[in-house]
Amino acid sequence: MYEEFQSILSGIGPVDNALTGEIQAHLDDLTKPQGSLGRLEEVAMKFAVAAGTSRPVLEKKKVFCFAADHGVAEEGVSAFPAEVTPQMVYNMLNGGAAINVLTRHAGADLDVVDIGVNHDFPDHPGLRQRKVRKASSNIAKGPAMSLDETLQAVMIGVSLAREAHADGYHLLATGEMGIANTTPATALFAVLLDLPVESITGRGTGIDNEKLDHKISVIKRAIEVNGNNLATPLDVLSSIGGLEIAGICGLILGAASVGMPVVVDGFISSAGAVTAMKLSCKVSDYLFFSHLSNEQGHKRIMSKIGARPILDLDLRLGEGTGAALAMQVIEGAVKIYNEMATFSSARVSEKQ
Amino acid sequence: MYEEFQSILSGIGPVDNALTGEIQAHLDDLTKPQGSLGRLEEVAMKFAVAAGTSRPVLEKKKVFCFAADHGVAEEGVSAFPAEVTPQMVYNMLNGGAAINVLTRHAGADLDVVDIGVNHDFPDHPGLRQRKVRKASSNIAKGPAMSLDETLQAVMIGVSLAREAHADGYHLLATGEMGIANTTPATALFAVLLDLPVESITGRGTGIDNEKLDHKISVIKRAIEVNGNNLATPLDVLSSIGGLEIAGICGLILGAASVGMPVVVDGFISSAGAVTAMKLSCKVSDYLFFSHLSNEQGHKRIMSKIGARPILDLDLRLGEGTGAALAMQVIEGAVKIYNEMATFSSARVSEKQ
Repeated sequence: MYEEFQSILSGIGPVDNALTGEIQAHLDDLTKPQGSLGRLEEVAMKFAVAAGTSRPVLEKKKVFCFAADHGVAEEGVSAFPAEVTPQMVYNMLNGGAAINVLTRHAGADLDVVDIGVNHDFPDHPGLRQRKVRKASSNIAKGPAMSLDETLQAVMIGVSLAREAHADGYHLLATGEMGIANTTPATALFAVLLDLPVESITGRGTGIDNEKLDHKISVIKRAIEVNGNNLATPLDVLSSIGGLEIAGICGLILGAASVGMPVVVDGFISSAGAVTAMKLSCKVSDYLFFSHLSNEQGHKRIMSKIGARPILDLDLRLGEGTGAALAMQVIEGAVKIYNEMATFSSARVSEKQ
Repeated sequence: MYEEFQSILSGIGPVDNALTGEIQAHLDDLTKPQGSLGRLEEVAMKFAVAAGTSRPVLEKKKVFCFAADHGVAEEGVSAFPAEVTPQMVYNMLNGGAAINVLTRHAGADLDVVDIGVNHDFPDHPGLRQRKVRKASSNIAKGPAMSLDETLQAVMIGVSLAREAHADGYHLLATGEMGIANTTPATALFAVLLDLPVESITGRGTGIDNEKLDHKISVIKRAIEVNGNNLATPLDVLSSIGGLEIAGICGLILGAASVGMPVVVDGFISSAGAVTAMKLSCKVSDYLFFSHLSNEQGHKRIMSKIGARPILDLDLRLGEGTGAALAMQVIEGAVKIYNEMATFSSARVSEKQ
């Protein structure tokens, strides 16, 4: 499996920046003052270059919501009990979660992926059964999972992305559900981006001050306990990561390997994205960071990696909710590129 | 007509804040950590309160794009020639402008309103012929229009809003097209919000430094020349405003008078909104400011009136483009409110 993983990594090519001239010329010929659509123009440019064409198509969109449990939940780092992970998966399968509402609103499909929930689900058309194991182990006591399990989880994401590409999707988005998962995500940022744990640890679904101090100490312990096994991004992912974070990392790598752009949701999804960016320096050209999370530290993380998220709506839910909203902005940008009249065709006078 | 206008103003009632308890209770019962959808929850609350119901409906949406010419264009304050106003109206009627693309994307209808373009248009199903006069006069030399013309333009906006309400629309948005219209808008902000002209004068569709200095001096001259006639908001509107700004002001007043929320586009639309807010202190409860314009000074203006726009995408085009994009966020927020499952119905455990 490691060879397969390496071949995906080496298959991620650079985007073709030679396209930018033609794309910019078209953007500048549309009936508006040049640059007056600001970030919509930037987004249209990035989407087209990532898709490798000056005639981009954006019709089929899908959000993958990866669900997994975390052994570290037993340390009491979350405001909600671990049983909420499978309960929320059922809620998503029944169409009642926020991500269901927002994917319907965006005209996007939704696949819920059980990549590590501590529960046996019956078959359901909206559920992809890809369980690697039932929950990761408690990172405050040892590694979250083995390297083999980590690779399995990553390759599940890779396969889902490549399958979606074969099914004609043009844009994917990441999402997740997993009680306690801000804890491994924060540990991962601290190590991969060399940021102080205190500066990026937040309240997740809503813990109080006392629990926040406790969460910081649990994250520090996790980094310390696993200190001997943090040499590579894959080591970090297996030691202090989580199954859904690995799946998201894989989805991004898989999409980039076939030249398909991906929208990254909030705090947890960014952990998967940062891991993918550490594994391949070319990945960032395929990524849209959808929104600035209200989770403490996300701003610092976005700044560290030089990303400027599209939206800033104080969201801190996850699931893919911010990504689904940003998909509509991205689709609007691509429609602007494809559907607006040009100065000559509309007989509008140009700037004096 | 002045009596009619006064009766509209006095008909704008306060929103029913007694609804907030019930609305908040429902938001808190949805299957997500309380408050975790941030500004979406605030938007849903504001929409429901403005619409006067804890069971809000948001299906029919319309953008009104008011077009008018400005005598002050002869001072050379814009990067584009005045003939672009009618050319862009034709472009909109042919479906090729940015606002066409983004209203289609948002599932909103679009009415282009000729309230003062210096051109005779043939009949067209997408065009509302409501011309008050062909262009306003040069504000650097005297008043833009008479008080009677100003009231006519305001009442056109009022009527369009009330007609849309009768036609079953749930949300309106403002937009505009008018070469040189950042000049009267800036003059209006300077006087109504007591802001220094230099601090809020921007490059509009893209003028250079020299033209920017010239534009500042033209705006100052307009305020000076009309100094004896700036006592009331209506005086300001007629002296240094414009026909589309008056129409936008009226649309907002008319919508508020029937309890219908309105999305305000960028810099020019904000000038109409600020005028409406000066005419009625209750209007702001019905307004969503859609985006922070990239036009210099908009941030300062938003801060002065205590508004936090929904989007920040560096747009500076106008037409209603930012408002159309924000409509999708508002619709998403209302769908969250209406379509998500509750903790009890979905059998999800609550916070510990």
